[in-house]
Amino acid sequence: MRIAELSRRTGVTSASIKHYVREGLLPAGERVGYNQTAYGDEHASRLHLIRALLDTGGLSVAATRSVLAAIDDPALPVSHVLSTAQEAVSRTDADPSTDAVERVRALVHDRGWTVCDDNPGIAQCAEVLDGFAGIDRDDLGDMLERYAEPVLEIARGDVAAVAAHRGDRDRMAETVAVGTALGDAMLAGLRRIAQEHVSRTWGPGADPQP
Amino acid sequence: MRIAELSRRTGVTSASIKHYVREGLLPAGERVGYNQTAYGDEHASRLHLIRALLDTGGLSVAATRSVLAAIDDPALPVSHVLSTAQEAVSRTDADPSTDAVERVRALVHDRGWTVCDDNPGIAQCAEVLDGFAGIDRDDLGDMLERYAEPVLEIARGDVAAVAAHRGDRDRMAETVAVGTALGDAMLAGLRRIAQEHVSRTWGPGADPQP
Repeated sequence: MRIAELSRRTGVTSASIKHYVREGLLPAGERVGYNQTAYGDEHASRLHLIRALLDTGGLSVAATRSVLAAIDDPALPVSHVLSTAQEAVSRTDADPSTDAVERVRALVHDRGWTVCDDNPGIAQCAEVLDGFAGIDRDDLGDMLERYAEPVLEIARGDVAAVAAHRGDRDRMAETVAVGTALGDAMLAGLRRIAQEHVSRTWGPGADPQP
Repeated sequence: MRIAELSRRTGVTSASIKHYVREGLLPAGERVGYNQTAYGDEHASRLHLIRALLDTGGLSVAATRSVLAAIDDPALPVSHVLSTAQEAVSRTDADPSTDAVERVRALVHDRGWTVCDDNPGIAQCAEVLDGFAGIDRDDLGDMLERYAEPVLEIARGDVAAVAAHRGDRDRMAETVAVGTALGDAMLAGLRRIAQEHVSRTWGPGADPQP
């Protein structure tokens, strides 16, 4: 199909399609004549994936590029796709204090979890602890221990969703990448809903609703 | 104290301090003479809060301004601080499909949750469902139902942390605002840690670790 039809089918403007090709997110179409390019169904699917990662997942163009490259490399084990996706959705400029990192590592150790020291979640949680300490609200740091068990349950389901595609490496890789990026957004969205519900029904301390 | 000392104590540059005053995030200091301004301890605490919301919470300047204004308005009930904070940490340009919104509402209804139709989490979750549908991965949408119970447990703890400061409206408001913004980051960070742990130990389907 021509670029105009690809645009119509996917709802992505021709200018954005060309931009994604230039940025290395989308493979170039096939040149089929003077100033004409043909695109296939695989371009349409890839465009939907790009938009899901960029818009819903909130990834940068560079992060999206590295996640797509990880999905596309058939030699890359699914575990590496996971670490690439985790890196991509994490802030890279986190610079947490040693104390905060030690506290997160202590939680990991106490729970008997097996995790690499460079798991990007460690720096991210530590940075949140530093944020609480900076405003003299260390009391809020118990969120770390409080969230651990429910999040473990969430992660068990995440890994089971990947394992359901056992034997299909590409499907597993896509599930890992998309689940990591969009799962954060789902989790945050559900938390807003559940917080409103609980604060309405769980009387003590909640002030009267408008 | 002078601006140089405030900068030294908080680690925020003088240029940023002036920027926050101009943007209405930080109250102006007191003019104490020609070209001199005095700042107090309350400016230092506020600067730490601003940086926690901007850097760790990832809020925009506009979102930070509205959260701070909600904290500062003593007449505003804590429940309104919650909705302001929830709006501030949510994307405002979400435009989900009716089907996806209905699915999220059905979950809320089936679980007997009481939530306003305009809770920003509804649009956010619906947008994630649309993202899965767009890449023909509707199967991943069961994440919505799968996450509901663990997230409810998380929300119960969040509301209890606020209720612990019953009677102190300002402390409750700060807890709500900071917990909403930084809690998302903590949740996402812990999810990365737990996912790595589970994918290492929960054998089936996981490919060999490097």
